[in-house]
Amino acid sequence: MKEAKEFLAECYNENPRLKKYPLSEWESALEKEKLQLSSFRGKYFFRLNKEFKGFQAGTVFGKNFFVPGYPSIPRIFVLKTGIKRYLEYPFYAEEKIEGYNIRLAKVEDEIFTFTRRGFVCPFAYDRYADFLPRLPEFFDRSPNVVVCAELAGPENPFVSEFPPQVKEDVCFFVFDFYDTEKGVFLAAEEKLKLLKEYDFPHPEIFGPLAPDKDYEKLRSLIFRYHREGREGLVFKTEGAGRRVKYVTPYSNLADLKVVFPYLGEVDPNFVSLRLIRLLLGIHEFPELKDEVMAEVGRYMFEEALKSLSLDQPSYEIFRLRFRDEANFLALLSHFKQTRVNIEVLEKRWEGSYLRVAIKKIYPRATQFWRSKLEGWGEVD
Amino acid sequence: MKEAKEFLAECYNENPRLKKYPLSEWESALEKEKLQLSSFRGKYFFRLNKEFKGFQAGTVFGKNFFVPGYPSIPRIFVLKTGIKRYLEYPFYAEEKIEGYNIRLAKVEDEIFTFTRRGFVCPFAYDRYADFLPRLPEFFDRSPNVVVCAELAGPENPFVSEFPPQVKEDVCFFVFDFYDTEKGVFLAAEEKLKLLKEYDFPHPEIFGPLAPDKDYEKLRSLIFRYHREGREGLVFKTEGAGRRVKYVTPYSNLADLKVVFPYLGEVDPNFVSLRLIRLLLGIHEFPELKDEVMAEVGRYMFEEALKSLSLDQPSYEIFRLRFRDEANFLALLSHFKQTRVNIEVLEKRWEGSYLRVAIKKIYPRATQFWRSKLEGWGEVD
Repeated sequence: MKEAKEFLAECYNENPRLKKYPLSEWESALEKEKLQLSSFRGKYFFRLNKEFKGFQAGTVFGKNFFVPGYPSIPRIFVLKTGIKRYLEYPFYAEEKIEGYNIRLAKVEDEIFTFTRRGFVCPFAYDRYADFLPRLPEFFDRSPNVVVCAELAGPENPFVSEFPPQVKEDVCFFVFDFYDTEKGVFLAAEEKLKLLKEYDFPHPEIFGPLAPDKDYEKLRSLIFRYHREGREGLVFKTEGAGRRVKYVTPYSNLADLKVVFPYLGEVDPNFVSLRLIRLLLGIHEFPELKDEVMAEVGRYMFEEALKSLSLDQPSYEIFRLRFRDEANFLALLSHFKQTRVNIEVLEKRWEGSYLRVAIKKIYPRATQFWRSKLEGWGEVD
Repeated sequence: MKEAKEFLAECYNENPRLKKYPLSEWESALEKEKLQLSSFRGKYFFRLNKEFKGFQAGTVFGKNFFVPGYPSIPRIFVLKTGIKRYLEYPFYAEEKIEGYNIRLAKVEDEIFTFTRRGFVCPFAYDRYADFLPRLPEFFDRSPNVVVCAELAGPENPFVSEFPPQVKEDVCFFVFDFYDTEKGVFLAAEEKLKLLKEYDFPHPEIFGPLAPDKDYEKLRSLIFRYHREGREGLVFKTEGAGRRVKYVTPYSNLADLKVVFPYLGEVDPNFVSLRLIRLLLGIHEFPELKDEVMAEVGRYMFEEALKSLSLDQPSYEIFRLRFRDEANFLALLSHFKQTRVNIEVLEKRWEGSYLRVAIKKIYPRATQFWRSKLEGWGEVD
């Protein structure tokens, strides 16, 4: 703890963003474990494990960098009234990609890949260069910008769902640039310019749009996305303006399908929230009513029925490719640290990639279904 | 408070059941509002609002009576393994009736009708004589027995679902006799004898049964109940033995149908619990799989879609008949006390019955759906 405190004091002296609050406040956050010392590849940094004053959970900083947590985006349930309530001309609609949020930032002489919670994701660290090869060049010119991307695809370590356009492996979809000096996201025009200039893969972006004129356009888009198995849209006004998101009925159905076998591991609201969104979805898209009503049962129950078993625990298999075995080991140690139960099923080199298959075992889901299958009762 | 304390001391002196704990403990429960003074038709009694030592919430007592709270019965999710785990020969399977639990007990010179929570239900008080006309005679012979019944039917004030065999009005289904002196439920043989002798309506009762031999019989029964739109079964071993319950897939579907328009008023687990039961139901009854998967969406969404509206609040209409207008007024005042928002839509005498229609308005459900329809967003 003494070392952490010393390092905190050094960071405080050199990092102007910390001076917003007195050192003693930061020290008290450290004592309360809101602020935690973390490290990756021999570099130390702090991560906010919980919200602290004006800073969000997931904020990370060291002596020479400060990356704020990625803000939560409120979800609207009805497109028609929601866009009018929150947005104004000009706003942009971007495809919402089913994956996980990674903030790529320059930390001293390296590029680190921070998860939403502020850990460095060793998988993202291993692979970003495959998809964003011109990122070093980008950071040479803009060392104080954070590149925000969704890491998505069938071969990622955290999320079972993936966008239809990624047929194998993964991809990094860059959706925001955050200027840490000005404290804003770059405006759409500049973002589009940079995405093109550095050839960064990105979600579909539509706009500029007006809330009172473009409802039908967005409605058709959501309808097409539903058909194509895409997740939804994020609406962004410029700079520090409002942002909201909206998901397709398909996305809710797919969530129900993947989560049902693992009930007991997730928040009990997970299921009802998706059903509520589906109901409001078919209220706004009556042309999808018959389809959703007929199919939702199959989405909830079909896979889950197959997985009900007394003989083996609830698990999911994730397949991944790594450039560097050390990053795979770092991922395993991340899982150990966050108490995720892992079994390595396969590990072999294929060309320049280490191909691995890991099994995540879900003890709470196992116990949840097993006790019921074994005939145990519950008072409700 | 002083009067309540004096009355408590009087009860303590005269009622031997209270002596299990010192008076000071009861007084402390009163101070903590675990124990509350209640009254009906000028008679005072105490009700336990929360569990207190060995006594359950819903326990009621006065100077000369003591009615323990009706015990919670654990639910099993799988019939096959559940009956083997909890039951032994001889046990009985009784139809579980969809309604609400009423304990009828002799209080001085009157018969009171206590709800699960220990209030006197003015509706049950008004109507029991229509369905249990020989109850006074029963209590003359057995003043220390509590008659436990389910009040069920399309015209009850609390529950929107009802058993298929009650086509109009309500009925009292007697399912237990509790001997307050011996502290046990009467055994099946004695119960069946009394039900017959006093001509009390009751649920279907099957038995004696053996857990290792009668699974197929119970399975067929549940299958028939599902088809007939019945709720399920309660399994009871004799006397102080174990009890468990099991519900049909139909019951879960019907619960989803009635609750969906009123989400926001109920525990968020309500929906997922029923879906979990449905999944385990079709695991055990694969012959119902296709039907349940195809129909569950319609049960959840069809009525709820119709009720989505910005123009009027979420509500339900209940129709009731009373013998005595004073009991209707007492019910209204019960709703007021328990903060249920009521509007009287209709009130007219028809023969010897006052026929009433009341509208229950659900402010939380109204707000829940309205805010979403109005386009408000939420962070999840």
